[in-house]
Amino acid sequence: MIKQSNSTINVDALFLGPKSENATFFREMMEYAICEHLHWRSGFHPEDSALITTVDRYTADYRDTLYRTEGILNQLSSKLKTTSVPWFSPRYLGHMNADTLMISNLAYVMAMMYNPNNCAQEASPTTTHLELEAGEDLCRMFGYDPDTSWGHITSGGTVANYEGLWVARNLKTLPLAMAKHEQARNLLPNISKQALLNLSPSTVLDFIDQLKYAGWFEEVRALTCRGAGVESSKLGKLLVPQSKHYSWMKAMDILGMGQQNIVQLPVNQQYRTDTQKMRAIVFDLIARGEPILAIIAVVGTTETGAIDHVDSLIQLRRECEQRYGVSFYIHIDAAYAGYACAMFLDEENQFIEYEQLIHRYQQEGIFPTDVIWPKPEVYRSFQALKEADSITVDPHKVGFIPYAAGAICMKDKRIVDLISYHAAYVFESVTEKTPSTKNQQVVLGASIMEGSKSGATAAAVWAAHRLVPLNIHGYGKVIAAGIVTANWLTEKLNQTESFSIDDRTFKIYAMQTPDFHMVNFMFKQIDNHNLQQQNQLNKRIYELCSFATGRSYTNDFLTSSTSLSHEEYGDNPAIFCQQAGFSLDEWQRVQSLYVLRAAIMTHCLRDKHHFEHYWQELKTIFVNKLQQVVDENNKSNRLATSLATQQLA
Amino acid sequence: MIKQSNSTINVDALFLGPKSENATFFREMMEYAICEHLHWRSGFHPEDSALITTVDRYTADYRDTLYRTEGILNQLSSKLKTTSVPWFSPRYLGHMNADTLMISNLAYVMAMMYNPNNCAQEASPTTTHLELEAGEDLCRMFGYDPDTSWGHITSGGTVANYEGLWVARNLKTLPLAMAKHEQARNLLPNISKQALLNLSPSTVLDFIDQLKYAGWFEEVRALTCRGAGVESSKLGKLLVPQSKHYSWMKAMDILGMGQQNIVQLPVNQQYRTDTQKMRAIVFDLIARGEPILAIIAVVGTTETGAIDHVDSLIQLRRECEQRYGVSFYIHIDAAYAGYACAMFLDEENQFIEYEQLIHRYQQEGIFPTDVIWPKPEVYRSFQALKEADSITVDPHKVGFIPYAAGAICMKDKRIVDLISYHAAYVFESVTEKTPSTKNQQVVLGASIMEGSKSGATAAAVWAAHRLVPLNIHGYGKVIAAGIVTANWLTEKLNQTESFSIDDRTFKIYAMQTPDFHMVNFMFKQIDNHNLQQQNQLNKRIYELCSFATGRSYTNDFLTSSTSLSHEEYGDNPAIFCQQAGFSLDEWQRVQSLYVLRAAIMTHCLRDKHHFEHYWQELKTIFVNKLQQVVDENNKSNRLATSLATQQLA
Repeated sequence: MIKQSNSTINVDALFLGPKSENATFFREMMEYAICEHLHWRSGFHPEDSALITTVDRYTADYRDTLYRTEGILNQLSSKLKTTSVPWFSPRYLGHMNADTLMISNLAYVMAMMYNPNNCAQEASPTTTHLELEAGEDLCRMFGYDPDTSWGHITSGGTVANYEGLWVARNLKTLPLAMAKHEQARNLLPNISKQALLNLSPSTVLDFIDQLKYAGWFEEVRALTCRGAGVESSKLGKLLVPQSKHYSWMKAMDILGMGQQNIVQLPVNQQYRTDTQKMRAIVFDLIARGEPILAIIAVVGTTETGAIDHVDSLIQLRRECEQRYGVSFYIHIDAAYAGYACAMFLDEENQFIEYEQLIHRYQQEGIFPTDVIWPKPEVYRSFQALKEADSITVDPHKVGFIPYAAGAICMKDKRIVDLISYHAAYVFESVTEKTPSTKNQQVVLGASIMEGSKSGATAAAVWAAHRLVPLNIHGYGKVIAAGIVTANWLTEKLNQTESFSIDDRTFKIYAMQTPDFHMVNFMFKQIDNHNLQQQNQLNKRIYELCSFATGRSYTNDFLTSSTSLSHEEYGDNPAIFCQQAGFSLDEWQRVQSLYVLRAAIMTHCLRDKHHFEHYWQELKTIFVNKLQQVVDENNKSNRLATSLATQQLA
Repeated sequence: MIKQSNSTINVDALFLGPKSENATFFREMMEYAICEHLHWRSGFHPEDSALITTVDRYTADYRDTLYRTEGILNQLSSKLKTTSVPWFSPRYLGHMNADTLMISNLAYVMAMMYNPNNCAQEASPTTTHLELEAGEDLCRMFGYDPDTSWGHITSGGTVANYEGLWVARNLKTLPLAMAKHEQARNLLPNISKQALLNLSPSTVLDFIDQLKYAGWFEEVRALTCRGAGVESSKLGKLLVPQSKHYSWMKAMDILGMGQQNIVQLPVNQQYRTDTQKMRAIVFDLIARGEPILAIIAVVGTTETGAIDHVDSLIQLRRECEQRYGVSFYIHIDAAYAGYACAMFLDEENQFIEYEQLIHRYQQEGIFPTDVIWPKPEVYRSFQALKEADSITVDPHKVGFIPYAAGAICMKDKRIVDLISYHAAYVFESVTEKTPSTKNQQVVLGASIMEGSKSGATAAAVWAAHRLVPLNIHGYGKVIAAGIVTANWLTEKLNQTESFSIDDRTFKIYAMQTPDFHMVNFMFKQIDNHNLQQQNQLNKRIYELCSFATGRSYTNDFLTSSTSLSHEEYGDNPAIFCQQAGFSLDEWQRVQSLYVLRAAIMTHCLRDKHHFEHYWQELKTIFVNKLQQVVDENNKSNRLATSLATQQLA
């Protein structure tokens, strides 16, 4: 691994910038990235005779083909410029998108010229190693021991979640498979079949070693659900927060486990999984003898950015093991907020004590004095990540890498053998750095869900990690810029005076201080007490602030939106409704709250002066948008009146 | 869709070229791709005040961050140049890799600057449409009706295969789910539960419409294996060619169906699925009352490029339906050779008659007079593709698109509702172009396996299809260049004189004329009759012609290799063994044949003069490699002799 310098990073110098401020550097480096490859080509066996001569290159059909290439690129550029979304601008505050790191774009292009396929090292002698290093970086960030854990890149968080559940599922059926094997069954404790489903992941992983020593592993593996197929009724339940991302529904479908076997965990007022209710559900399942396949905690939900109490979940498992001898697999979906783990790490990759962390944030100017982050419970969640069995994290979200780059980290790499299509290795190889043995080529495709995959993605992630260390000075600083802005914005939204538009008055409400950097807010016509009308107003505002009403490029402000429904959040959204003056009855009647949703990932507003200026602009934009809605309403009212008059006449 | 010009394509003008011949054009276009975006940024609200000033940009930490960026790119470039593989050169003939289309690389970079995410249209207003168009292109190429079929991009063929099996599995359990539904069961014919598993895909798809009309679809869908989970023992068998790609083993594991439920179809002497044996196996399963979930045919196997008799499989299904009322799903794994379907299509997308095709190939110079392609049975396979339920095809293989770009096409888009996470739409929407209804944004992530995905990939595939039409004049011409070279090479390898190296004599043997453009060949020391030694010789040659023995860049020739084993191919490799002079006994003793494997995808050797020159060079390289092996052997023999002498002394 290249030694990461800890000299001060200038965050503005990492991105192309909202006005292409770094255009000169970027173009120069892009030219470098391309030319390096061009010369690599022309330098490969320069003695070879020319297959394409200059004369060939000036024939009519040759030029024609080049001109047509250019023409199609012209068309593509027109299309892209017409309808793309300006993520790079602070005027875009919506999905988890912002500018991406220059180095990642450059590294992607540089590597793409060589077109490596990370399915097998033979097709990617360079970038397979970069992927393994990048995976190791992420494992280290989460507090996993890099010698015994492993991580790799996926096409996104969805596939990473599938893979986490896949290993959990296959792990669960190993003891059952051992029970079917004449010799291997002797390695099992003398417990019931039911109890075999409740063994802890580490106990099962130790069986793998024992089975390998005895030479029975491959036979037994073929008896797991991998070979025998799933009997979904026998696998136990998957516990997922009620706000579940639909990737978990898809995962249960794809993996053959059935959505019926999902048990929803209610969320609390902070939109986090309600720990008390989770405990009650788990104890009830145990009492009823129902095995638990896995529990999912979300670190950064897609709708509110809430961070589940990972520490409480880890504690709960320990308790279940001690009190009832019942264990389960724990997977963390940290697709969104996972990279924020870097914010807690010092130069030596040590998790910093809370008091000291807050102190350093202030002292080193990572946070201004008016923003205190994280909440202690958020801190404890990140601290507990190292105890989870696997973690999904998306470089293409808060890693600021271009699409598509997800990742999964697994605490104990022995688990890979349950899904691997290598021959199983003997114990010795477990201590090595990769799932492959020495002197054998690494075939990632045989150890992961996907097959062919772009090696350029690995180069993009690897290069980003080299430039921006996964600690308080690197990603910590970059991510903090968004959190600071999210906090300032929440404050401004809630403190701002009402807006008078014609004869109506509007106010803005933002949800409580976010766990991470997702701000949910809404406009309210103050004399309206009808929640449906409220939702319509905000839906219309969203449309006016999105591609839904025309070219994003000509828009002044762009955001995203979501509905907080009873189905997903119980009655918790009622609090925000009531805060904005709606009655509990009204919430209960409508059971859904439409809000604007802004992941604050921009690095450009970290300067208070810039932010204040931006906020003044934003207020003007809000007034304009509200004016537009009012005008539309007036117009449709006039039309209705005129129609009614006509009908009367 | 942009009208595709059918003016003559110059194949050399499509690629950067083995010596970067098109460097000037490529750099110019790359600069264009980048600058278009740079100006898009700076033109977005130019009235905004500068957040990063020139003064900011010249501070020490800002410059330092840029310098470090450059330094890491230097490192990355060094790494890439040290160990990458020169796919672009005709000196590389191995995996399904060659130069990639300039337009795709340029389109990728151009679109990447905007960083679209094709998971949802909101995050990719431009590129989601490009993906749908590219999918439509592929459907049209396979002969599917673009109005009722649908196709989309995946990260690779592996994921496409998973998705094909996923829809097949969920389809299979719909009738069973209907039987569990109080009202829906009345729509079913009065047949046994067993027989419900044997309904044809189109019958089941019609149920979807009926269920939607009646308003029961979502209830019933929740009762399929998607909701209830898989009970693998009840799903029937998956029939896969014996040479099965390991993605099918993974697919059965992941989808919970169990590898035990794979039935292997033996291959014949052409390494294609043996039609007679397949029929016998199918009839036997039917006789035993065992349902067949799906049969997979491979169009272009990864090891020999063999093309299964798709027409015979389609015919078999028809026969089973008529004779026994038993049907099954048919998926084609055309990851490798799928794009070759373009070779059969005229300017109007009509499948050309065989006689006329051969005539046009000659007349238009697509094939020279000494190469006749395709074999009639290969022609019939491609012609029958339109009858398959789904097809995997990899743009990143014979589509000449950079990694990672796979794709899947489904004949009847109604099938998407079985895996979709949209609310199910009523019948009307089925006639539309996409799985989404009008006025509703397309959310690809809700209708496919993956979630987040790069929109830039869609731009790369779309642009390639616009420039290089999916017909005889476009991809047909590009792919033909490789097939011609494969044929010439096979002939040369088999006709060449033996090589004398010191006191040994070697000969080359190539396997029979390939179905597509994969050439398998081997060197043989003519007086050796030991197959193990033969395999060792070729393994060593492979090592000397690959990254295994040092930097690929300094190598004269690079190839790949594979073992043809009894497990995968029965005794069929014995034919090639015997052709090279090994006895049948020797084959039966060793049961594995190590061969060099070259997918001939280069477009550079289509000129006979160039090819002849190349072949002369290649012969010299072969002599040098053999000399190296002989020297190594002599050295180790001397060492052994000397050791033996010492021991005697």
